Amino acid sequence: MPTLRFDLQHTDTNSKARAGLITTDHGQIPTPIFMPVGTAGSVKAVTQQQLKEDVDAKIILGNTYHLYLRPGLPVLEAAGGLHRFNGWDRPILTDSGGYQVFSLAASRKITEEGVIFQSHIDGSRHLFTPESVMDVQRSIGADIIMAFDECPPYPAEYAYVKKSMDLTHRWLDRCMKRFGETDNRYGYTQNLFPIVQGGTFSDLRKESCAYIASKDAPGNAIGGLSVGEPVEMVYEFTELCCGLLPENKPRYLMGVGTPWDLLECISLGVDMFDCVMPTRNGRNAMLFTSEGVINIDNKKWELDFSPIDSGIPCAVSQYYSKAYLRHLMKAREYLGLTIASIQNLAFYLWLTDEARRHIQAGDFLSWKAGITEKIRKRL
Amino acid sequence: MPTLRFDLQHTDTNSKARAGLITTDHGQIPTPIFMPVGTAGSVKAVTQQQLKEDVDAKIILGNTYHLYLRPGLPVLEAAGGLHRFNGWDRPILTDSGGYQVFSLAASRKITEEGVIFQSHIDGSRHLFTPESVMDVQRSIGADIIMAFDECPPYPAEYAYVKKSMDLTHRWLDRCMKRFGETDNRYGYTQNLFPIVQGGTFSDLRKESCAYIASKDAPGNAIGGLSVGEPVEMVYEFTELCCGLLPENKPRYLMGVGTPWDLLECISLGVDMFDCVMPTRNGRNAMLFTSEGVINIDNKKWELDFSPIDSGIPCAVSQYYSKAYLRHLMKAREYLGLTIASIQNLAFYLWLTDEARRHIQAGDFLSWKAGITEKIRKRL
Repeated sequence: MPTLRFDLQHTDTNSKARAGLITTDHGQIPTPIFMPVGTAGSVKAVTQQQLKEDVDAKIILGNTYHLYLRPGLPVLEAAGGLHRFNGWDRPILTDSGGYQVFSLAASRKITEEGVIFQSHIDGSRHLFTPESVMDVQRSIGADIIMAFDECPPYPAEYAYVKKSMDLTHRWLDRCMKRFGETDNRYGYTQNLFPIVQGGTFSDLRKESCAYIASKDAPGNAIGGLSVGEPVEMVYEFTELCCGLLPENKPRYLMGVGTPWDLLECISLGVDMFDCVMPTRNGRNAMLFTSEGVINIDNKKWELDFSPIDSGIPCAVSQYYSKAYLRHLMKAREYLGLTIASIQNLAFYLWLTDEARRHIQAGDFLSWKAGITEKIRKRL
Repeated sequence: MPTLRFDLQHTDTNSKARAGLITTDHGQIPTPIFMPVGTAGSVKAVTQQQLKEDVDAKIILGNTYHLYLRPGLPVLEAAGGLHRFNGWDRPILTDSGGYQVFSLAASRKITEEGVIFQSHIDGSRHLFTPESVMDVQRSIGADIIMAFDECPPYPAEYAYVKKSMDLTHRWLDRCMKRFGETDNRYGYTQNLFPIVQGGTFSDLRKESCAYIASKDAPGNAIGGLSVGEPVEMVYEFTELCCGLLPENKPRYLMGVGTPWDLLECISLGVDMFDCVMPTRNGRNAMLFTSEGVINIDNKKWELDFSPIDSGIPCAVSQYYSKAYLRHLMKAREYLGLTIASIQNLAFYLWLTDEARRHIQAGDFLSWKAGITEKIRKRL
């Protein structure tokens, strides 16, 4: 079966921003796009119906580390893959588990072979190798599978980052070999995306981009950014990588970021984004809206009966008031977590859709300047 | 404005079960009916859209004690009442706050005047009197307002229960006086229901029923049951009260109970029910289904990909599988709480609707015998 298709529909004349269309066996994804994170097979506090109807998500993420540990592969395989298990029939992308192994596992040890780690749930010991991680993601049934990589922290020494990048490149070769030797698991095409590493060192990033680009994968990811470095460096290295990765393949910037980060990185040539920020911050009372940022816990919203956000096309955001949502958050009602998560996700999806519209209309940069000022404002 | 109307449409020939229709300014309520509990202005973990579309709730409850403390009357009044605040445009019933004052408040002292209590949230001191509680419920904007009563525990001495019942009766007179002297708060009719007390003493229950019946209220409630006594006593005193309360007014049995309790009490002449059981037990992994009771935490559901409940007309219950819901509960995902709550509420609403259908069809008792055996079964 052919890999996913990427049609580059329009490139901005004043920036590197692009509008495109990814076609997978689970449907099409207009780009630029934000992908909500569904860690353990569920975008936290949001139903699949709400994801479709209120958020209008086109693709969601699953975390390999979480899904591998719980519910585990026997359950996912018996279900016929994650799509059938959780009832999400649009595309799914899974990360490689590498990032979670380093950030969540009770302990971990890296060798050439892979990573031995202990589950944060029950302390049980597991081994992830480039090969096993391909098999796991095949079994989960992701439409887009990520290569197994090591993501160095920031700051890190040059020597460490170089060694780590070389390991990631060797692991990529093993990933590609295993991926090529194994079949699509459930009758639809699965696609492998390699990941650029190299920390905050230009020569390493260039080397990594060249290596990744040489693989001619159906899409390419930029990893290892937004891990603690100043935001200017995120932009600097995103720009560098976008300039070196193939133009005719989608570019995925992993784990970024704020709404204004998205807009900036779209202008640098990124097509795909994921981040836990909209859902996590939403559960902590921080709302992103088309008018600016709201701390809904603040007393100033107590008597504000206006809709949460009437500027985005989301029924939930228009139905409930700021005062009601504030009450729900103060009273720690679960419904508050749901409404805040839907608002923030719908806002992110609205924002990438607007960006796409303005790229196609040719006024992306001027729109970006105005909207950035507006949505960054603290209300 | 006229009070709510109750049309008694059909009375079963083999039992005391009735099918009726309550008409309020916020719409009609077919009876028998189960009313989901929306403690602090939200039925926990369920959106108002899901309550309408998936659960098909016809009326929900609010708790006066909770709403009075948070968000508080200034907010509710500024919103234009609870309906406008939470976006629920069907009928709302509020309890009087009495029960929560006794079960939740940090401390409370009962006098003839009313109850002085300390908030469980911040320790602040408040006074509830029959008069203030009428005013509070007027401000909340409930369609059905409950009289302020004292609910004695079980077991309790005869002398205490008699003294408490007499106080509840005197409080009722003060409630009715205040209610009659005050206007509908937001342009639609509000209705006051008195509450029968008298514990588990037949002569007191009879005396209380006679007193309550003499008030010719638009509906009547039976309180003080299901507070720890054996279920046979719940049935015994429900039967006694139903026999003494007016036939042409809806009868509301407060805080009851399991699905089979509902069916038994419907056969004794009860029209309205509320209980936290479907939502609270749902959040603790206990599912009521049309096939029987399920502990969804149990390993036996790990690979069961059949719908949660295909026997009730609820899209959510048919969309998600038992295995997926089990995974969500094990992983403590918020979505699990939402799905389990919707399943249990939709089941309760399906059950009272089925009861109504069979009352009208004339085969209520035989249907009740069969369905009770089925739904009580532990799967």
